Amino acid sequence: MRDVAIIGIGQTPVGEHWTTSIRHLALEAALNALHDANVEHVDAIYVGNMLSGEITGQEHLGAMLADFLGMSGVEAMKVEAACASGSAALRVGTMAVASGMSDLVLVTGVEKMTDTSGRTTTAALASAADAEYEVSQGVSFVALNALLMQRYMYEYKWKHQDFANFVINAHANAKNNPNAMFHMTVTPESFARAPMIGDPVSLLDASPVCDGAAAVILAPAEYARTLSAAPVLIKGSAVATDPVAVHDRKDPLALEASRISAQRAYQMASVKPSDLDFFELHDAFTIMATLSLEATGFAERGQGVRLALEGEITPKGRIPITTMGGLKARGHPVGATGVYQVVEAVLQLRGLAGANQVANAHLGMTQNIGGSGATIITNILETME
Amino acid sequence: MRDVAIIGIGQTPVGEHWTTSIRHLALEAALNALHDANVEHVDAIYVGNMLSGEITGQEHLGAMLADFLGMSGVEAMKVEAACASGSAALRVGTMAVASGMSDLVLVTGVEKMTDTSGRTTTAALASAADAEYEVSQGVSFVALNALLMQRYMYEYKWKHQDFANFVINAHANAKNNPNAMFHMTVTPESFARAPMIGDPVSLLDASPVCDGAAAVILAPAEYARTLSAAPVLIKGSAVATDPVAVHDRKDPLALEASRISAQRAYQMASVKPSDLDFFELHDAFTIMATLSLEATGFAERGQGVRLALEGEITPKGRIPITTMGGLKARGHPVGATGVYQVVEAVLQLRGLAGANQVANAHLGMTQNIGGSGATIITNILETME
Repeated sequence: MRDVAIIGIGQTPVGEHWTTSIRHLALEAALNALHDANVEHVDAIYVGNMLSGEITGQEHLGAMLADFLGMSGVEAMKVEAACASGSAALRVGTMAVASGMSDLVLVTGVEKMTDTSGRTTTAALASAADAEYEVSQGVSFVALNALLMQRYMYEYKWKHQDFANFVINAHANAKNNPNAMFHMTVTPESFARAPMIGDPVSLLDASPVCDGAAAVILAPAEYARTLSAAPVLIKGSAVATDPVAVHDRKDPLALEASRISAQRAYQMASVKPSDLDFFELHDAFTIMATLSLEATGFAERGQGVRLALEGEITPKGRIPITTMGGLKARGHPVGATGVYQVVEAVLQLRGLAGANQVANAHLGMTQNIGGSGATIITNILETME
Repeated sequence: MRDVAIIGIGQTPVGEHWTTSIRHLALEAALNALHDANVEHVDAIYVGNMLSGEITGQEHLGAMLADFLGMSGVEAMKVEAACASGSAALRVGTMAVASGMSDLVLVTGVEKMTDTSGRTTTAALASAADAEYEVSQGVSFVALNALLMQRYMYEYKWKHQDFANFVINAHANAKNNPNAMFHMTVTPESFARAPMIGDPVSLLDASPVCDGAAAVILAPAEYARTLSAAPVLIKGSAVATDPVAVHDRKDPLALEASRISAQRAYQMASVKPSDLDFFELHDAFTIMATLSLEATGFAERGQGVRLALEGEITPKGRIPITTMGGLKARGHPVGATGVYQVVEAVLQLRGLAGANQVANAHLGMTQNIGGSGATIITNILETME
């Protein structure tokens, strides 16, 4: 198996792009990544996207992006794993280079959630859950996360306000990220006052509906040094699954697929949690941030929230998370999120994260979650010496 | 790169499965393939599917199938490339084994087109075309193929009746395939009398709306002999693209992505068209069968239809096609079709194609088309000695 490196990154600002179509968003991120990698052509294109068919009536984004980039002829396809679609596309791109089927690969995650011509965004997002056994009961993603948070607070005796620092940290970091959707400060007081949208999930526990695209260029690690001044090695890469329906999981608070995919990635990379300089986790809801920290080995069961309370999750803390704003404040264009996480991790590893730079960052992890935990994908990235 | 072999195949009958949900269809095909391969567990699952999100409000089929198979924990995701989704999933599975990331892989193509709770099937299928520049004009897939067929008949002076043998052969072969949707004979007279649905495309030029699932188990070729009595080598595998919008292609009748993906597959397999014993092509419409024969090197431009007229496409002809009924008569559950083609090719290579057996078949090709030619995926399969 060939080692795989990231030699270019690109992104669009996250926001409500009312005048930009999905193909233009994907194009902009892809061109930025090609420019950053200083390459003009790739052998294959993998697009991470979840909602385009349902929301805009457009499938077939692989061939569409290849054409719009002027690269018709190359291999291309779309990969979907609910909100983990971006990382799933990266996984396929990694295998394409690792196998030797392709040398240069473009992975683009893209989502346009604001402008719908089919199902509503909330209904389309629910297609990540079990249509026959969950959605038919009227449950939405906010509701599923509210049930998990309710249970967690009951089991481990936390109060809603104890989660505030996840959001305060995300918004503080997003302020220094020009591509983030939100640049306003959240305080303990504003967190406490936020309107409830699904008890105990308030508006500030939840990531926003938004549009955006992010892209990376992959190459064999053996050539990466000749192509890039600062290549980043994909040292670990793993996908794990759990039942789609939350009620079918043995322990809904265990986030088993997070644990398994992290363990596989740790083993592949020969590292342990304490070796990591930062962790771009999937804070679609604050409860998911907590559960992720526990499942990946940074906290005991029921104690993930303590890392936030004790300030250990900031760029200067023991395990910095959501260093560029996370899903909460950078935004969560669902099929693009996994690629945004990797783009931001590469910025950290290149030492280009500006005011949010984690000191001496050379080893980082990203984790992308689909469907409140049914598909979880972990990547471990390292600066190439 | 490791060589990859197919060690198990499974399928459901194609038809209108009103009482079977999409997860049950996928399960049945997958269990059949696992049983055929005599394995109980795989490392990864790749699902080919196009319409599930749009039609039934269910994305996230990778994790769903993993759970329903009792394999939660394994890697899983969905792959989409319009009607080439099944082959796209097989391509990802091939790269997973070739790279060494996985040893045993399940690839399942599944589609449920009859039972819709969202967009109509015709509207959902149109998401394979360009939503902004084609579908907004009211064009459907029948219409796009009618435009291509009209142009072809004008350029090369063929009459509609000259295409009859594509359909007569497909239906004759489907009669001996218990999994085929149609078992009725088509004659030159019934072809001539078929109702027109988009001039010059008649009802008998077009493949049906239907449900079905097919699956294969992949393994490293080096172990395949110890796992299976009759493994089949994936000797060539290639994906190519063309603009999604037909009007953006330099020559809409050239089927450029078919030519490119076949050339890549021929090169990878070190074979030429005349070496092939049969060719499972993508006869979603008769015009597509004609254009595919030309683009892959079996006929000169404008002369593909002559192979049908001269009887060279039957199981005893020079280049047998649609040997188990093809998309026309076995049926075309879109995201499953590419896997059905491969399952049928394996039956031929194992010598188990019954009355439709191609004599001494040891080398075959499949080609799966997405969006009237925008994504085309070719596989070359060989009996392992």
